[in-house]
Amino acid sequence: MATAKLISQKAKAHAPSLSQATTAEKNNVLQAMAQQLKADADVLLQANQLDIANAKKNGLSDHLIDRLLLTKARIDAMATAIDHLIELPDPIGAVKEEIKRPNGLVIKEMVVPFGVVGMIYEARPNVTVDACTLAVKTGNAVVLRGSASALHSNKAIVRTLKKAFKNSPIHPDVIQLLEDTSKEEAANMMQLKSTIDVLIPRGGANLIQTVLQEATIPVIETGVGNCHVYVASSADPDMAFDIVVNAKTQRPSVCNACETLLVEQSFAKAHLPALVERLSAKGVSLVGNKGACTLDPRIAQANEDDWSTEYLDLRLAIRVVADTNEAIAHINQYGTKHSEAIITESLAERDTFFATVDAACVYHNASTRFTDGFEFGFGAEIGISTQKLHARGPMGLKALTTSKYGIYGEGQVKE
Amino acid sequence: MATAKLISQKAKAHAPSLSQATTAEKNNVLQAMAQQLKADADVLLQANQLDIANAKKNGLSDHLIDRLLLTKARIDAMATAIDHLIELPDPIGAVKEEIKRPNGLVIKEMVVPFGVVGMIYEARPNVTVDACTLAVKTGNAVVLRGSASALHSNKAIVRTLKKAFKNSPIHPDVIQLLEDTSKEEAANMMQLKSTIDVLIPRGGANLIQTVLQEATIPVIETGVGNCHVYVASSADPDMAFDIVVNAKTQRPSVCNACETLLVEQSFAKAHLPALVERLSAKGVSLVGNKGACTLDPRIAQANEDDWSTEYLDLRLAIRVVADTNEAIAHINQYGTKHSEAIITESLAERDTFFATVDAACVYHNASTRFTDGFEFGFGAEIGISTQKLHARGPMGLKALTTSKYGIYGEGQVKE
Repeated sequence: MATAKLISQKAKAHAPSLSQATTAEKNNVLQAMAQQLKADADVLLQANQLDIANAKKNGLSDHLIDRLLLTKARIDAMATAIDHLIELPDPIGAVKEEIKRPNGLVIKEMVVPFGVVGMIYEARPNVTVDACTLAVKTGNAVVLRGSASALHSNKAIVRTLKKAFKNSPIHPDVIQLLEDTSKEEAANMMQLKSTIDVLIPRGGANLIQTVLQEATIPVIETGVGNCHVYVASSADPDMAFDIVVNAKTQRPSVCNACETLLVEQSFAKAHLPALVERLSAKGVSLVGNKGACTLDPRIAQANEDDWSTEYLDLRLAIRVVADTNEAIAHINQYGTKHSEAIITESLAERDTFFATVDAACVYHNASTRFTDGFEFGFGAEIGISTQKLHARGPMGLKALTTSKYGIYGEGQVKE
Repeated sequence: MATAKLISQKAKAHAPSLSQATTAEKNNVLQAMAQQLKADADVLLQANQLDIANAKKNGLSDHLIDRLLLTKARIDAMATAIDHLIELPDPIGAVKEEIKRPNGLVIKEMVVPFGVVGMIYEARPNVTVDACTLAVKTGNAVVLRGSASALHSNKAIVRTLKKAFKNSPIHPDVIQLLEDTSKEEAANMMQLKSTIDVLIPRGGANLIQTVLQEATIPVIETGVGNCHVYVASSADPDMAFDIVVNAKTQRPSVCNACETLLVEQSFAKAHLPALVERLSAKGVSLVGNKGACTLDPRIAQANEDDWSTEYLDLRLAIRVVADTNEAIAHINQYGTKHSEAIITESLAERDTFFATVDAACVYHNASTRFTDGFEFGFGAEIGISTQKLHARGPMGLKALTTSKYGIYGEGQVKE
């Protein structure tokens, strides 16, 4: 089986055919990808069934099996997403800034692709399609390392997508899938600094931590979300209830769902039982600090681990706090710098929260569930950055580009 | 002696007093720093003499001792640089983008400080002043780890700079110097992900590589420059000579100096001896490939290592190449993605070079020596990035900031 080193060398060798392609050439490949996915739907579904059968044999949870599953409708949705991607403006080639210097030098900061992007990700096969299509749009070659459990699906998808390069000047080897899904080969891939420019891990906390520890390639950390909603005393109760219920229950398995609710004392005294009623009706099980437990017997005692756990489930930790400062201190101690909300009618409290909470996205009077490239209007998303270098929050096409200074001279030398 | 962990915790604890300071409060501290440096000049010079005496005892080269040396004039220059920094616009608080969504959400991408910046650097004490003053201007606390050889100077400088916070709401502990200069404690510092947001190493190739290997904190890779000048056949010979001589000899010890000269065959045949004459007159010793050696006996045979060596000295490797494609392939194989120049009268060759050379800065008909924050008009510089995440090329104030999305709602929940 080809090593990560070998396939990344291939990706790098052919990357210029993509980085220098015109917008039309890139969109033509994307168009062909959308058509080919639909044309090959049966083949993809068959390959996916092999993964599903293995997953059942290996006792994977229904939840994970659902993430792995391809259906005709899901393949159609992938094709539709590509149609939308085609319509987005091409970020490459733009000049971000033009500087004219007194000595006559003209300096242009140009938007360029990274070169080769590495993706290490878990089960969902649609990430394979997202990564390949966003890479093509942004002029980047891509090296994919999906999980063993999705290997049949990923191989079939990549085979299908590569057909789309048939009549293109762009070489199909700009897409590379690592078929050796051993941990050793993944570790090797994380060290390929000379052929992979940036690494984007997508998956659970363990995957992300492993990549951060082992990679020497620059990494964009994504996705772990221990998100909080803080309800201040001045909050509108109906709005607060709706937002808390939405942030917790609308889709509990995703990174921008709420995991801990912070409630200012006087609001809690007046309204916590009614809120617990709403959450219980949605099947949410609750743990809390003493202040919370005393106000409602349906809240079990929380332990220290609860404050740092991303449940990804219908489970919520509740902490009654003395004031906004205690809420902010709690978030800055236990949060993962993802999405943090304050519900309040006080603009002063909002401003303090926005200024002092250290997170990619800070919300006022809205659900944390909006942290998403599509909800932000980016039209595409490759992940959600929870670190501070390069990109923060939802990452659209722009996050898959870097810059290069072009300096135009007429013989200038340094005095 | 305080550990890296302890001092970074202090920096983080007091960072909000700086990240939320007004522009006037930050500039007042900078003003006081400039004054205090001049007032304490004698104390600083005395402390520096201890380092210089040690350096001589330890047999450091004259070149390194000169980098370590403080003089009255150098201290005055530091103060003047601070005066200029005060005049630069404050990058913090700007809104980079404002998005209004159909559901009424308003999303503002705000410019914010990182929080705590870690610097690991080698001998020059002026880096201590640059790091502290640029950090204050950009609202970042800073944790410094300078080299053992500059410890007396760095301690004295930090003591002086901290006096500038006397009448300020900003806490002096936003500046922290690691006085334990052991390798073990530096390694500990590189792992302090919960208290340091970003790490900027500045120094030689070994230092940078160590940090890249050992750090779990996100790193901005800086500075190693194996830079090339490529002279195409259509180049104006006089311009080419001036640029090559300038790029190699104007200050050979810096990262943006030229280390390898690439010359297209027909230009080399016509002009290489005359160019060698100019370089030899400046004391440059030369090695080259066969094509170069046959054209001039003053060029010694190069070996494979020469192509990847950053000499930082009056030494130049010369390779005669068949054409522009061979020059570009050479640069992309041996370059360090720093600064690469083409000298040509052909705009088509320039465009190919700009599109395909993978470097932070690509030059047409100008010396590579201009890769510098001041030469780019940034008014300040914390280093030169040679990687592709976050910042590329010279890093001014903007490179010490990140962004944060503020989402303003009226009760929006996700459907």
